[in-house]
Amino acid sequence: MIPTITAFASSPDRGRGLARDMRVRWALEEVSQPYDVRLVSFAEMKAPAHMALHPFGQIPTYEDGDLVLFESGAIVLHIATTHPGLLPDEVKARARAIAWMFAALSTVEPPIVERSAAVLMERDEDWYEARLPMLDARVRQRLDGLSSRLGEADWLDGDFSAGDLMMVTVLRRAEAMGLLEPHPTLRAYIARGEARPAYRRAEAVG
Amino acid sequence: MIPTITAFASSPDRGRGLARDMRVRWALEEVSQPYDVRLVSFAEMKAPAHMALHPFGQIPTYEDGDLVLFESGAIVLHIATTHPGLLPDEVKARARAIAWMFAALSTVEPPIVERSAAVLMERDEDWYEARLPMLDARVRQRLDGLSSRLGEADWLDGDFSAGDLMMVTVLRRAEAMGLLEPHPTLRAYIARGEARPAYRRAEAVG
Repeated sequence: MIPTITAFASSPDRGRGLARDMRVRWALEEVSQPYDVRLVSFAEMKAPAHMALHPFGQIPTYEDGDLVLFESGAIVLHIATTHPGLLPDEVKARARAIAWMFAALSTVEPPIVERSAAVLMERDEDWYEARLPMLDARVRQRLDGLSSRLGEADWLDGDFSAGDLMMVTVLRRAEAMGLLEPHPTLRAYIARGEARPAYRRAEAVG
Repeated sequence: MIPTITAFASSPDRGRGLARDMRVRWALEEVSQPYDVRLVSFAEMKAPAHMALHPFGQIPTYEDGDLVLFESGAIVLHIATTHPGLLPDEVKARARAIAWMFAALSTVEPPIVERSAAVLMERDEDWYEARLPMLDARVRQRLDGLSSRLGEADWLDGDFSAGDLMMVTVLRRAEAMGLLEPHPTLRAYIARGEARPAYRRAEAVG
């Protein structure tokens, strides 16, 4: 039996792979785990059958036998802890790699999502232009911290890990908004992620 | 040797335990692990010595010998995976408990933080009152989903876990803004968390 994940039937990013299922596809490709994808419409996402899988009516979900998971971070971490290749075995190095997963999702992504939501929902409001520099500054503060820490390294802590996988997918959202212009270091980091064969396979399937 | 965590020297919540070190204190108390707390000022948090521990210049950090971690989620997960008591042993139940940790941090907390930031930074702007219903709706959508899923249960998935610990601390931030009035179920859930002896010990130390 192979796991099934859910993704948007009609992706709002028009196939650029910015939706959160891309993280899970990429992780599954990194560990060579075959999987099925079930596409759901926006209406289906909010219907009882999907809400039973995902309490907040979002994608992706992950079903493997009687295990049902939601939250891209949790799904990727589960894949990474049940297959070799995405996390170091040594306990401290593993904890640090997982810290980068949380950093991607809890610290770097929220200001990017906040800015995306403003562009999407408040573009025609009087205050849109006035608020944008503040939103940009919140993203920039995170990108500056990340860029300083990454420095000249290829990956955030030693070898490529699930922490890099999550961070690259989060940064791609900032890149799509043009916010990575001042950060060649982070653009090169994204490019290293996108050059991985597993990423390209995930993209081709998506 | 016992671990050292960092916390605000002068807490912006005036000791109500809403800062992110509370999650780590609570987790350490749940597993009966003694710890030291190093208080840092806002200036110290942005200085090189602290930025070497935390790339985004925040609290909490966690130092245990030569292991340095940041991100409250990662720290709590490391404590929970290296001590018994905060996560089920069975692999699927463990994955589900961890999914609630990610849900707390990636899905429930961001709209709460977004609303807090608006109250703090944009209270005097012309658009503040006009935007507030939208911000409230974003929080409410998460609280509705969570409340439906919790139902009449004591905890989110079986016994109390690190997932509940994270969710309770996140919900306390919404409660402090008065957003839990329509959700007696979630207020009772928070109260169950706060009634735990480990929570009370963490609060007394904080």
